[in-house]
Amino acid sequence: MNKRPHVVIIGGGFAGLTCARRLRCAKVRVTLFDSRNHHLFQPLLYQVATAALAAPDIAAPIRKLLGRQKNTTVLARSVDHIDLAQRRLRFDGGELHYDHLVVAAGAVNHYYGHPEWEAWAPGLKTIDDAFEIRRRVLGAFEEAELEPDPDRRKEVLTFAVVGGGATGVELAGALAEIATRTMKKQFRHFDPEDARVVLVEGGERLLNGFPPRLGERARQRLEKLGVEVRLGARVASIDRRGVHLVDGRTIPARTALWGAGITGAPLGATLGVPLDRGGRVPTDAFLHPVAAPDTPSAHPEVFVCGDLAAVSPACNAGKPVPGVAPAAIQMGRHAADQIRRRLAGRPELPFRYFDKGQLATIGRASAVAALGRFEFHGLLAWLLWVVVHILYLASFRNRIVVLFEWAWAWFSWSRPSRIILEKGARWPPPGPPPPADAAAGEAPSARANYRVG
Amino acid sequence: MNKRPHVVIIGGGFAGLTCARRLRCAKVRVTLFDSRNHHLFQPLLYQVATAALAAPDIAAPIRKLLGRQKNTTVLARSVDHIDLAQRRLRFDGGELHYDHLVVAAGAVNHYYGHPEWEAWAPGLKTIDDAFEIRRRVLGAFEEAELEPDPDRRKEVLTFAVVGGGATGVELAGALAEIATRTMKKQFRHFDPEDARVVLVEGGERLLNGFPPRLGERARQRLEKLGVEVRLGARVASIDRRGVHLVDGRTIPARTALWGAGITGAPLGATLGVPLDRGGRVPTDAFLHPVAAPDTPSAHPEVFVCGDLAAVSPACNAGKPVPGVAPAAIQMGRHAADQIRRRLAGRPELPFRYFDKGQLATIGRASAVAALGRFEFHGLLAWLLWVVVHILYLASFRNRIVVLFEWAWAWFSWSRPSRIILEKGARWPPPGPPPPADAAAGEAPSARANYRVG
Repeated sequence: MNKRPHVVIIGGGFAGLTCARRLRCAKVRVTLFDSRNHHLFQPLLYQVATAALAAPDIAAPIRKLLGRQKNTTVLARSVDHIDLAQRRLRFDGGELHYDHLVVAAGAVNHYYGHPEWEAWAPGLKTIDDAFEIRRRVLGAFEEAELEPDPDRRKEVLTFAVVGGGATGVELAGALAEIATRTMKKQFRHFDPEDARVVLVEGGERLLNGFPPRLGERARQRLEKLGVEVRLGARVASIDRRGVHLVDGRTIPARTALWGAGITGAPLGATLGVPLDRGGRVPTDAFLHPVAAPDTPSAHPEVFVCGDLAAVSPACNAGKPVPGVAPAAIQMGRHAADQIRRRLAGRPELPFRYFDKGQLATIGRASAVAALGRFEFHGLLAWLLWVVVHILYLASFRNRIVVLFEWAWAWFSWSRPSRIILEKGARWPPPGPPPPADAAAGEAPSARANYRVG
Repeated sequence: MNKRPHVVIIGGGFAGLTCARRLRCAKVRVTLFDSRNHHLFQPLLYQVATAALAAPDIAAPIRKLLGRQKNTTVLARSVDHIDLAQRRLRFDGGELHYDHLVVAAGAVNHYYGHPEWEAWAPGLKTIDDAFEIRRRVLGAFEEAELEPDPDRRKEVLTFAVVGGGATGVELAGALAEIATRTMKKQFRHFDPEDARVVLVEGGERLLNGFPPRLGERARQRLEKLGVEVRLGARVASIDRRGVHLVDGRTIPARTALWGAGITGAPLGATLGVPLDRGGRVPTDAFLHPVAAPDTPSAHPEVFVCGDLAAVSPACNAGKPVPGVAPAAIQMGRHAADQIRRRLAGRPELPFRYFDKGQLATIGRASAVAALGRFEFHGLLAWLLWVVVHILYLASFRNRIVVLFEWAWAWFSWSRPSRIILEKGARWPPPGPPPPADAAAGEAPSARANYRVG
């Protein structure tokens, strides 16, 4: 066994997990690293953030998913350096030699040079992110019940979602449903329907990766749900008082959420090739890292997969490969297959991306779907969305539980996971108090004004 | 409406929630305070800690449970002071006047004057506590996979549970099952069955509140599961190296859990009466706070209910009323009924505790039950335990989900909630490094020794 080639996979997301599973019967030793102990079904993470699902519904222990695969060791550690020349990597706990390396470390939130915005507008990449968003959203309604000043209550009940991609659209739709349905009749000092959800998008349309007609359809649908959609609204800054736009206007939101950008995981930088604008590692058509387009890779034993890879457009008929789960799964499968071909002495094949289409949901019973030449929306698209997401969920148990939760939510209009956790509070962040303008100056006294009886 | 008497309930646990629900049709205004937004079904909290259930399975938003009760306002705030003379209370956000007050603030973990032990042996009172315990227990197995030194691995895989009451017995049984069944075949560098679970009890028997025969039965059953039960083992201190006993021996456990003591919530001290040894508020037979046994209460408009109350033994045929959920429910109901009687001008009745018996579970398909004169154990007791816990779960939805989870776990032997969360890590706690003895001194180098290939 120890003489077998050693395949190291970094990341237990869609790409890494698929790759490991595909190597189940290969004559290799596999070591999979993930700093978290669970595979996360990220497409449904917004539902954890908006209290529709519990965290274990969309996460499964990697160790369990790969438990019966005897050639595979799972290490819950993060890799911090890759030495391509020596074929070694360093993690917090030791170092390892590899023969083949699959780097599928994914992406992290990106604030375009303004890391200070994160404190005011958390992104949504991990379960901890989802809990933080849940805490702020549910906490805002609790806060409003205690806020006697109508203007301040309005601020507390304003939610700004930055970014009109799939994440932003899905979050905004879910927030609107929380305000109009979930919280209905549960407060005594205000009407939850007074909550304001503003979706801020810098471009001129929503769902940029989709056909224009579906972006427009999503906008109409969100506005029907009560969301204010601001197109062409570019963000100048985000702070305690809300989201400030380049045109000088401010959205006075106590709660802002970030869905406007991600960048490749920091590990990509240790691969020694120049990253693209999105912080991703450029690859050739074989998924090997390259220093420049159309140059040969110096490291054919290394594959870069998933959100971290800026795959050669040759793999998708000249178009970039999108950062979606099906692409990551296909890349993970490809890397495993090519490792097996190499071990069998057969020539490597290039990666070909098969576009399965795109789906995004906009609240209850509504979604948009773009499948090749077919575009559709409404109930049919939503049913397709349900079926696809259930099928892709990693374990059989999760499928049943999520189906049950959705069926329950459908009939009860409730969000069962309305649990605010206390630990891990990052909000309000430490830092200087806000400028002493009129609105902010009222804060301490206004809070003490709640008196009954 | 505003002329109606104002009933303030502090705490949304079994006592507070029952009291509020019972006042649904009363001609009063009700304000319920809880610093958390959810009612927690504490008897199943150990299952969240041991990854068998997800947090939302055993918690329901108080606001939702009372949403349709129009005379009731829920405030997610903690009350920090009660002014009995003025009938006012102060919370973080304002103050309130009350006409009737129900104090059901519950209990907190108690370390007998050693708060520094908490960092090494967290207790189990909140969902955040449960997540912390889950993190440490699952994290220990992950750590062991990376630990090359056999002696240190043994320490990492030793779990000490302090306290042989129901919480300790249930935690120890669940830990043994995790080691022998859940984790089976999922590690490559050690056998999870090597994990050692030690249950430490200072007294001479387990389950002190139960008949002696059942405590002995629980011990046998735990030992069959592989738990080492140490009776008469009193704790001298708990630190980084494990649990040190008064007899000089040490249990070298990397992970210790605390089930050895609770005390009344700090709010009880503001009621101005001397607390009992357990930090609880002594009450007369009417649940009103008293300065000394058999003295009349100075505040008949105040009721103390649930775990915070040290109820007059007159309510239970001369015996103390135990700190269990049925007792809290009965007290909450009693307080509500007496408030209604007073408003109707009728004389108050004393509280009578009805003992429904006691149940504790010891791993799969085994429990002990003491119902009046009946004592039994094994499968029948376990089935009773299942039925009772399902019936008591607060909302219909939770009942279905928990039943499903249990049925699934029964057939699959799995623990679906094996998700380690990162935020909120309190461990290892900040502080000086351990003394530079031989074992501890090896730590940094041993960690760097993991090398493969």
